[in-house]
Amino acid sequence: MSLLSKIEGGGVTTASGFKAAGVKCGLKNNSYDLALLYSDKKACAAGVFTRNKFRAAPVILSEGRIQNSIQAVVINSGNANACTGQRGLSDAEEMARYAGSLLQVDAENVLIASTGVIGCYLPMDKIKKGIAKAVANLSSEGGKNAAHAIMTTDTVHKETAYRGTANGKHFVIGGMAKGSGMICPDMATMPCFLTTDVSIERNLLQETLGKAVERTFNMITVDGDTSTNDMVLVLANGSNNSVKVQSRDSDELNIFYEALLKCCRDLAVQIVADGEGATKLIHLIVRGAADFYSGKAIARSILNSLLVKTAFFGEDANWGRIIMAAGNAGVDFSPEKVDVFLGDLQVAANGSGLVFDEARAKKILEKKEISVVIDLNMGSEEVEAWGCDLSYDYVRINGSYRS
Amino acid sequence: MSLLSKIEGGGVTTASGFKAAGVKCGLKNNSYDLALLYSDKKACAAGVFTRNKFRAAPVILSEGRIQNSIQAVVINSGNANACTGQRGLSDAEEMARYAGSLLQVDAENVLIASTGVIGCYLPMDKIKKGIAKAVANLSSEGGKNAAHAIMTTDTVHKETAYRGTANGKHFVIGGMAKGSGMICPDMATMPCFLTTDVSIERNLLQETLGKAVERTFNMITVDGDTSTNDMVLVLANGSNNSVKVQSRDSDELNIFYEALLKCCRDLAVQIVADGEGATKLIHLIVRGAADFYSGKAIARSILNSLLVKTAFFGEDANWGRIIMAAGNAGVDFSPEKVDVFLGDLQVAANGSGLVFDEARAKKILEKKEISVVIDLNMGSEEVEAWGCDLSYDYVRINGSYRS
Repeated sequence: MSLLSKIEGGGVTTASGFKAAGVKCGLKNNSYDLALLYSDKKACAAGVFTRNKFRAAPVILSEGRIQNSIQAVVINSGNANACTGQRGLSDAEEMARYAGSLLQVDAENVLIASTGVIGCYLPMDKIKKGIAKAVANLSSEGGKNAAHAIMTTDTVHKETAYRGTANGKHFVIGGMAKGSGMICPDMATMPCFLTTDVSIERNLLQETLGKAVERTFNMITVDGDTSTNDMVLVLANGSNNSVKVQSRDSDELNIFYEALLKCCRDLAVQIVADGEGATKLIHLIVRGAADFYSGKAIARSILNSLLVKTAFFGEDANWGRIIMAAGNAGVDFSPEKVDVFLGDLQVAANGSGLVFDEARAKKILEKKEISVVIDLNMGSEEVEAWGCDLSYDYVRINGSYRS
Repeated sequence: MSLLSKIEGGGVTTASGFKAAGVKCGLKNNSYDLALLYSDKKACAAGVFTRNKFRAAPVILSEGRIQNSIQAVVINSGNANACTGQRGLSDAEEMARYAGSLLQVDAENVLIASTGVIGCYLPMDKIKKGIAKAVANLSSEGGKNAAHAIMTTDTVHKETAYRGTANGKHFVIGGMAKGSGMICPDMATMPCFLTTDVSIERNLLQETLGKAVERTFNMITVDGDTSTNDMVLVLANGSNNSVKVQSRDSDELNIFYEALLKCCRDLAVQIVADGEGATKLIHLIVRGAADFYSGKAIARSILNSLLVKTAFFGEDANWGRIIMAAGNAGVDFSPEKVDVFLGDLQVAANGSGLVFDEARAKKILEKKEISVVIDLNMGSEEVEAWGCDLSYDYVRINGSYRS
């Protein structure tokens, strides 16, 4: 019997004791644009925040409060509240204070996230009306509306949830994420919110989240840009007599980590598949790397290369560009040892091209999901990463986002 | 009186004692595709070569011979002779040997460069016929044809030349370059060939070239990719009783460096202006940087950002993306000190947005050349860099390059 199973249709309110709402408050044109996430009891929280030098006001606020017990998270889309100086910080604080007052929760126990256009002040009257509406609409079925309310250029909402078992007890973890642009594998590169009913100590939760993010959200790229607003938050509220994760080497931690990893991976792949203008999901495996970080650097260089991305869009078996991009990663390896595969078709061996069946290559490249393997034959590390192609639509979407 | 003047229509054969030819040998579809550059006497040579881990055969060959006196350079387009293993190296050697035999020059005094598709073997029969034809066509008016023969996706050929005076003597320096894709500011990111009639010692020539490349070719980007085949070569043949550059602190070296810098800058800007699919040239100045390398890192991050590039294509004054990209450069600075200008219009001050005249911004962004200034207010270093926008045409050109 498997100890982990996916919950179809699950999301951020699937774990016990969590409610959410998504409402329209007028930040975007008649779309859901404000989400509220609420835990019946105070939850232990952990977070990973953008490493961009410019940190939006909500990132500064939430990182400063992440050590507190958390009971609510307010998230708006349409406006990033970034590069808004002191006024932006006051606005983020006011959002927490106002939500707290309606929920009868101290402002110190409320986190804030924003995503959207950089450099405009929040229309606080709309935001406050939205918060009031969201408080009134909180429900344990509100996960889907919340997932819709955090979208910007996304074409689909992103949710996932898993059920796990440890020592005869059950637990649930679920989440929602946003993102299809400013996505780059150097950090938590999009807002993502996870909830679980396990009971776990904060440092252990933070450490486990960091590990899972490094292998999932940090391994995806749409456009190589790390946003000013990214964060991954997880709330663990210990509801419903769920699993207690108490120590570092326990079975409980192992299974919780597996579940967290699956949720993060699910959401990360959903983000890339919905990458701005993307027509193809590229699943890249860097095999035979000397270590994780050199494999990651090569994966990033390949998946961020415009020439690689446009070749996939054009369904062109131009593996030379994959080789070229690997060579630009600033990693030490031996070019004459490198093998490259598109799907199960080997196209280069020992750093040189093979004569291959172009028709078979074309068939592989016509698919929506393409697996690419580059084997450095330098060591035993295998690194997975995900990217997408670069299409005309990417240019259209981003040539006119603000206006 | 200025000591430097531009020679209109000048190029790689403007300096005394240089001849060139450009011919069609069938590597590309009825276009010039093989160039030969020849010096009447053996010339002192210096070169800067790609740092991509995968180095094409001609790069390996030419870097190995750069300390020799050089009398000829053979350059083909349409095929990069990269990722072609031992056979590729033998082919490059054979090109030098064959050209040398026809020119009565030792193969050790011949350099080779190739640009085009990665991973295909050279059709040596065509190449040899092309070399023979080029030898027969060598002329001191051959610079323009040679500049055409090194083009791939370029829409215009790139040439420049300057005349200088030092200590009452005159000298000329000129050159040609290729490139509109795989252009990134981490190295000599395209093939470029310069010729001069000055007399100069090799180490001094190498050092001067390195300095000039760092401020010019290394400060441009089209797509963030460094090719497997890039090189900048300069040949100095001491013809025509030209200027002798003998020591490090001499007026002769200063004026020669200025001329070399101008040639490199001219060609570099021509490359970016002809960037694949580019509709706009972006001239970025990073002001107030702590030092050159932090300014360069920020310039590169901004000019390589797809979100910045598409915003310029869309003529959208989305300065938040410029700030975001600067914040991703991995450089230490204070976000709250940063000012941003589009043309002469300030759009952000102290890291926060200003209310600005959108109509005036639109006017600035409609131009073909756009100047952008980001002032970090951290130090006194000012760094110039050049990039271009990302258009539908970039995707079209690169979605179907190989096929």
